[in-house]
Amino acid sequence: MNETNRQWLLAKRPHGMVTKDNFNYVETKTPEVGDGEVLVRNLYFSFDPTQRGWMEDRPSYLPPVKLGEPMRASSVSQVVVSNSPDFSVGDLVQAAGGWQDYTLINPKTEMLGINKIPQGTDPTHVLSVFGTTGLTAYFGLLDLGMPKEGDTVLVSGAAGATGSVVGQIARIKGARVIGIAGGPEKCAWLKAEAGFDDVIDYKADDVDARIGELCPNKVDVFFDNVGGSILEAALNHINMKARVVLCGGISSYNATEPVPGPANLMNLVTNRARMEGFIVIDYLPRAAEAVADLGQWMAEGKLKHQVDMQEGFENIPDTLNRLFTGKNIGKQLIKVADPM
Amino acid sequence: MNETNRQWLLAKRPHGMVTKDNFNYVETKTPEVGDGEVLVRNLYFSFDPTQRGWMEDRPSYLPPVKLGEPMRASSVSQVVVSNSPDFSVGDLVQAAGGWQDYTLINPKTEMLGINKIPQGTDPTHVLSVFGTTGLTAYFGLLDLGMPKEGDTVLVSGAAGATGSVVGQIARIKGARVIGIAGGPEKCAWLKAEAGFDDVIDYKADDVDARIGELCPNKVDVFFDNVGGSILEAALNHINMKARVVLCGGISSYNATEPVPGPANLMNLVTNRARMEGFIVIDYLPRAAEAVADLGQWMAEGKLKHQVDMQEGFENIPDTLNRLFTGKNIGKQLIKVADPM
Repeated sequence: MNETNRQWLLAKRPHGMVTKDNFNYVETKTPEVGDGEVLVRNLYFSFDPTQRGWMEDRPSYLPPVKLGEPMRASSVSQVVVSNSPDFSVGDLVQAAGGWQDYTLINPKTEMLGINKIPQGTDPTHVLSVFGTTGLTAYFGLLDLGMPKEGDTVLVSGAAGATGSVVGQIARIKGARVIGIAGGPEKCAWLKAEAGFDDVIDYKADDVDARIGELCPNKVDVFFDNVGGSILEAALNHINMKARVVLCGGISSYNATEPVPGPANLMNLVTNRARMEGFIVIDYLPRAAEAVADLGQWMAEGKLKHQVDMQEGFENIPDTLNRLFTGKNIGKQLIKVADPM
Repeated sequence: MNETNRQWLLAKRPHGMVTKDNFNYVETKTPEVGDGEVLVRNLYFSFDPTQRGWMEDRPSYLPPVKLGEPMRASSVSQVVVSNSPDFSVGDLVQAAGGWQDYTLINPKTEMLGINKIPQGTDPTHVLSVFGTTGLTAYFGLLDLGMPKEGDTVLVSGAAGATGSVVGQIARIKGARVIGIAGGPEKCAWLKAEAGFDDVIDYKADDVDARIGELCPNKVDVFFDNVGGSILEAALNHINMKARVVLCGGISSYNATEPVPGPANLMNLVTNRARMEGFIVIDYLPRAAEAVADLGQWMAEGKLKHQVDMQEGFENIPDTLNRLFTGKNIGKQLIKVADPM
């Protein structure tokens, strides 16, 4: 192995929307593979709103990506050299390959893990419905949202990889599900394919008024991926003992000034309601539980999901922004290489 | 009974701070007492920030006070006529007398209850440490805040009737307690008498910076009576799995425009933290549990409390504003009559 290794390195921290200037494109050589290490070739990268946070130089649930390092990203990868007894050349794995062709991983010390993909599993599924977005939906909704049969569940970012799975799990659990998404195409998919009871198009509708119309019994669970004015609108309609699951706040991730929070937090008091945040990595030890349920629902045709697959290593930085401009429908992935 | 009954009626709903113009002073005659009813003479009124909310014409945990009705207020009162087998003339009771000398109550249907005060109990205690403010502190802190030994507990509105009890219960439970209050007199009392580990004077200190200095292990429980910028500052310092107990938001109760919420709600996500609201009336069935503990701590000298006692029926409206200008130290009461 002495191949060219293309990399997108974090060059400077973003202020506002991410641009290509935030990254340096470089070509190096693949590194030497030491004892116990494996070298993987990255085939697919996952794009996740949380990556925007990793680019900031501030404490969070993971350390910031350092300047001069490849941008951190989850990947489906293939082992091309193995000095580890646990991996063989050709194995497909889920890893945190980062934006480069080849990644050197020590399976014993890798912070974010490296896991073999079971034979027969669609590799793109491990970055979507069986990956962090699916697990985020499953544990966030069921552990924090705790929907009961007949509850009204409202989901923002409903056409996204997490939101679309949240809504479908809520339906499977017997809840009435209303989604908030942007644009007629996303809304149509949610109603026709994902089985949402109704959908609010935040680009066309008065969100606050429409929540009131579509949730006559108020909102028992609000699963929020968006924050900002959408969160404030939802808080206007929460039921007694409502659970607000804070998953993300994509509306503010690219803001250059602090974005004020909802002015109506006192609605949590009058309704004895709860707002709670979570990070899916805390649930990784319970992943098998989620994958078993999600797999069964997929097999039964109860759980649909969409992948927005881009292609080409050169298009990686631009693909990240599809999340923030709302262009993606479903899970945003990019394919950069074919398996051997 | 055909006595003059002085009343302060809600005349118009406030916009901003409450003024005397929001009330009409009238004199009527005491009403006829029907079957099963009692007539009480009100001796002491409790002042609570939540009364400001009752003056607004919007849905909340209790119906708004109607225009032309006496302003709703908790009272210590004395039975002067009884057509109920459960009450005798002379009984001291805790009730919702409202701002008038005499109140007609049907004990079977009274929404907010009427309860005899046990012999030997200081009647002002049932409006403070054994009343809604003490119960609010007890259940809010223990049920929602769940402080563990060694936790850091931060309390805003710390010199108030609720906040001062919250901090002392937290200390009894083995937590380190930091209070936020306004002015040197309140801060000195909290450290010298109430045993807070340290105090931040929000009128003099940089609250955000001081929380950071005084809470090197971060904040495990934040009990918030204030909201606004104090809440935002506290959220900057929450620990993993922190509990933010939303009790009130006095900083915005008199605002004429919506007050933006904290810009850093995403800290709830990265710290897997929870923010939860509650209303003490849900806990009234468990009041005896709280009163037993609070009474024991009082008897042991572990729980101090202060009463700010004003006097005179004519001073009722002005006394309400003492809560919002921060003039009160401890529980704000007014005495309007002596018992028989």
